[in-house]
Amino acid sequence: AQSNVTVYGIVDAAVMYTNNQAGGTNKAVMEAGQLLTSRWGIKGSEDLGGGLKANFNLEGTLANDTGAAGAGFGGSNLTQNFSQAGNNSSLFDRLSWVGLSGAFGAVTMGRNNILGVDSVGLADPMSLAHAGTNPNVALVGLNSGAFFGGFGTNQGGTALRQNNSVKYVSPFISGFAGAAMYGFGEKAGEMSSSSYAGLAGIFTDGTNGAALSFAKLKDPTGNVSLSGWAGGIKYKIVPSTMLRFTYGHNTIEGKLGAPVAVTSPNDNRKITVIGLGADYAVSDQLTLTGAYYNTKRSGDFDGKADQYIGLAKYAFSKRTTAYASLTYAKAGSSALKDTTLALGIIGTDGVQSKATRAAFGILHAF
Amino acid sequence: AQSNVTVYGIVDAAVMYTNNQAGGTNKAVMEAGQLLTSRWGIKGSEDLGGGLKANFNLEGTLANDTGAAGAGFGGSNLTQNFSQAGNNSSLFDRLSWVGLSGAFGAVTMGRNNILGVDSVGLADPMSLAHAGTNPNVALVGLNSGAFFGGFGTNQGGTALRQNNSVKYVSPFISGFAGAAMYGFGEKAGEMSSSSYAGLAGIFTDGTNGAALSFAKLKDPTGNVSLSGWAGGIKYKIVPSTMLRFTYGHNTIEGKLGAPVAVTSPNDNRKITVIGLGADYAVSDQLTLTGAYYNTKRSGDFDGKADQYIGLAKYAFSKRTTAYASLTYAKAGSSALKDTTLALGIIGTDGVQSKATRAAFGILHAF
Amino acid sequence: AQSNVTVYGIVDAAVMYTNNQAGGTNKAVMEAGQLLTSRWGIKGSEDLGGGLKANFNLEGTLANDTGAAGAGFGGSNLTQNFSQAGNNSSLFDRLSWVGLSGAFGAVTMGRNNILGVDSVGLADPMSLAHAGTNPNVALVGLNSGAFFGGFGTNQGGTALRQNNSVKYVSPFISGFAGAAMYGFGEKAGEMSSSSYAGLAGIFTDGTNGAALSFAKLKDPTGNVSLSGWAGGIKYKIVPSTMLRFTYGHNTIEGKLGAPVAVTSPNDNRKITVIGLGADYAVSDQLTLTGAYYNTKRSGDFDGKADQYIGLAKYAFSKRTTAYASLTYAKAGSSALKDTTLALGIIGTDGVQSKATRAAFGILHAF
Repeated sequence: AQSNVTVYGIVDAAVMYTNNQAGGTNKAVMEAGQLLTSRWGIKGSEDLGGGLKANFNLEGTLANDTGAAGAGFGGSNLTQNFSQAGNNSSLFDRLSWVGLSGAFGAVTMGRNNILGVDSVGLADPMSLAHAGTNPNVALVGLNSGAFFGGFGTNQGGTALRQNNSVKYVSPFISGFAGAAMYGFGEKAGEMSSSSYAGLAGIFTDGTNGAALSFAKLKDPTGNVSLSGWAGGIKYKIVPSTMLRFTYGHNTIEGKLGAPVAVTSPNDNRKITVIGLGADYAVSDQLTLTGAYYNTKRSGDFDGKADQYIGLAKYAFSKRTTAYASLTYAKAGSSALKDTTLALGIIGTDGVQSKATRAAFGILHAF
Repeated sequence: AQSNVTVYGIVDAAVMYTNNQAGGTNKAVMEAGQLLTSRWGIKGSEDLGGGLKANFNLEGTLANDTGAAGAGFGGSNLTQNFSQAGNNSSLFDRLSWVGLSGAFGAVTMGRNNILGVDSVGLADPMSLAHAGTNPNVALVGLNSGAFFGGFGTNQGGTALRQNNSVKYVSPFISGFAGAAMYGFGEKAGEMSSSSYAGLAGIFTDGTNGAALSFAKLKDPTGNVSLSGWAGGIKYKIVPSTMLRFTYGHNTIEGKLGAPVAVTSPNDNRKITVIGLGADYAVSDQLTLTGAYYNTKRSGDFDGKADQYIGLAKYAFSKRTTAYASLTYAKAGSSALKDTTLALGIIGTDGVQSKATRAAFGILHAF
Repeated sequence: AQSNVTVYGIVDAAVMYTNNQAGGTNKAVMEAGQLLTSRWGIKGSEDLGGGLKANFNLEGTLANDTGAAGAGFGGSNLTQNFSQAGNNSSLFDRLSWVGLSGAFGAVTMGRNNILGVDSVGLADPMSLAHAGTNPNVALVGLNSGAFFGGFGTNQGGTALRQNNSVKYVSPFISGFAGAAMYGFGEKAGEMSSSSYAGLAGIFTDGTNGAALSFAKLKDPTGNVSLSGWAGGIKYKIVPSTMLRFTYGHNTIEGKLGAPVAVTSPNDNRKITVIGLGADYAVSDQLTLTGAYYNTKRSGDFDGKADQYIGLAKYAFSKRTTAYASLTYAKAGSSALKDTTLALGIIGTDGVQSKATRAAFGILHAF
């Protein structure tokens, strides 16, 4: 019955230059979490005997460019709240759960990642780099408050993690596992409004893998749904080269009420993201990655944007990596219905329609 | 002069169902901290030689259903601020102190628990379970901001812990110890307003015990006092069975000013809580607890409410426990003067007067 | 490539009495961080081989009198925001960086201390005690939001640490080292507004030392600069006695816009702080310190204030120290232009011009 507790994290900082901001200007910034989202946390496990374990994990986002920790979530009972920031704040916004695991699988209760993260995340073309502007994270993973803030248990902010949720992950049998998760809307008199429900299946042979997930989130009225499918495949064709493919699609089903601006979600909005990527291991230390994302929106407005990323990673060790990346984003037009799909890379002044971004950074995991 | 530092905590999550909410509805939620309040902290001790030690403890509340950490306290100079939330926030809201201990006892300075916690807490009928709705915690322990927010050094939010306080605990002599604590109101020109002063005595033979405490808190004007007595006895009548008894009484002495609503504290308000409980150890792992609380209010409005709780705990280990509980709360009537004494279990729509709650949860301490 | 992670901190609490507050009243308070600023943090280092190391440090302010952690910074695009508090909050407000070190020196990226801290801090007359009212910390170190909040990358709150910054510290060669640091203003179209740039040189023979630093911070318009020089020398004349001398001067260069009140910074404001101190080691455990600070303001208003401090420290161990101090502060007059330079020690009611403060505290480092 001994327990071990680990304080761990990732501190990742990069200098980035982007052109074609509003007014055609350039911008130089320092940002946290460009190779992997910076975080810190506490986790532990206790062996209860007979294969049974008690586990917990507390983990929060770390904006190590300013020292800010945690993130906001909604929590107000606004009908819709499409805002990245929330009125409530959560220090351990990424994970905050306790649970049991054993031969039956694992059950966790608290704030959990939605199942799409573990499925599309498995095969993300750039392994979840540039998470803030990565279409798989922001759009398929429902991390963009501006696009998905009003649905699910958080009632604002990111939908990528869900408050008040119970998650079950089955054991792996012949490489296959399944998972189910439910988040309580916590409203008196009914179970539907502000709830989350998800299912996922995964296969892996240790190197290659495939995953598929489904999520359904309700708005605070219970009348409108956000549904999402996500899937991914990764396959090592030769020892040096891993190919990755992802597909994600989500839909707002129902009438959100009053017409909203073009940059906000709308009735029957559909977003589809296709991702393609390849990792090429030049040496044990140097890996080159090429990634492509295609984002399309329909149902409310027809919009599209593409991202092309080249990424070089040099691993000093398993825990420390220097990296450089070049991103080219191109929207279907300079209209907001297109440029907002580039998730902030392109200036949204109605004039710009493409932008190039360079990043140079270092990641250390502890 | 070696120092050890420990990161520790409790992560406790439960699914709860309660009927008779406003409108007669049911509600299903996931809540943190139902067997013991979830928390995380850092503590340490340094041996200075000759029996002298330097000690510190930082500890904060953990809402592991959302990942939120810490709690708010008042801090504004409002005359009275009967609000659970505060304008200021404290990450280490439960404990934040540094001190010395030795043959003379222990002195700690910073944010301390009031002395009532350690006295009535010793014998709480359900060992401080369901803290959010436990009359001993919320009312005797002054944890309810809505009832006690305006008094003491915090000037809002819970009064259970006091900012700017010095605490002294004597050594145990023949099983007896005493404690005294003072919290600075920090107002120029006087020492009374917003201050806290408390005294406590405790006896224990290692198994059985008794404790008595007194607290006096001033409002920000210095004209109104909140005084509280609390006492508890626990006694193991047979090896399998521990009996527990608590009594707590507090009084607002003086005129708070303008009349306030029935759900707020008022001039000369008195609250008395009587608790009775028994733990029965079925086996090393399984413990059954029965608890009863009687809450009465007078002086401003005559109100009352009762709670009956059955609780089963199954200990996987010393650190990990699964539990189930059933609570029946019954107010004197459906009026707010009665139902508010049930601390949120019963819907306060003026129609409901009783409610039943079931909870199923798991606690892991690390 | 092993990594070690340390959770560390300082918990320092003191009871303080100050006379001559507004209205001539006395005030008794408990405050955190009077010998050294209370803090907690996580740091670690990984050996990458060949002398190369990866390092990180996350550290935040700890108000252990209330349990509050972290600090606010600005972040709004207000033209000037001379406020100690900020709209954004940073849990790891003191340090939040990742970097590499080796034969070339050390590079860190994130939120860093400005270089003046490490130079004038080396020789501060009372070794950075009473940081909240220490002229070297508040004025030379730019920690006073009320005096310096609008400049640099934080855009409000303290300027002592800078968001979005890259810092380089050279190796020591024959006792000499240099450092340079740049903080990104992160504004599209230009690199000047809200930026920080600094240079420093340091010499040490292990016991004695000298340091000199320069900083230039821009306001959010880019039109107004805050420039600061700081230097310090410490010299052990006999084994028992260390002398300390500091000089710091900063200037606002340019027109801040609309006239502001006398208590706010203003066009062409200049502040000079001279510090003199001596540590006398009575024994291995007991150290007596005498310190004197002279603060002068010109350019906008002519003001001045002096502080005289006597400080006794008794070290129970390397990690635990009890202390007592007596401070006498005297302003040039009772006008705000003078008394505000005493940084809150003297009541600012336009009547008081001097005050005496006594502090009794304990510090424990873990």
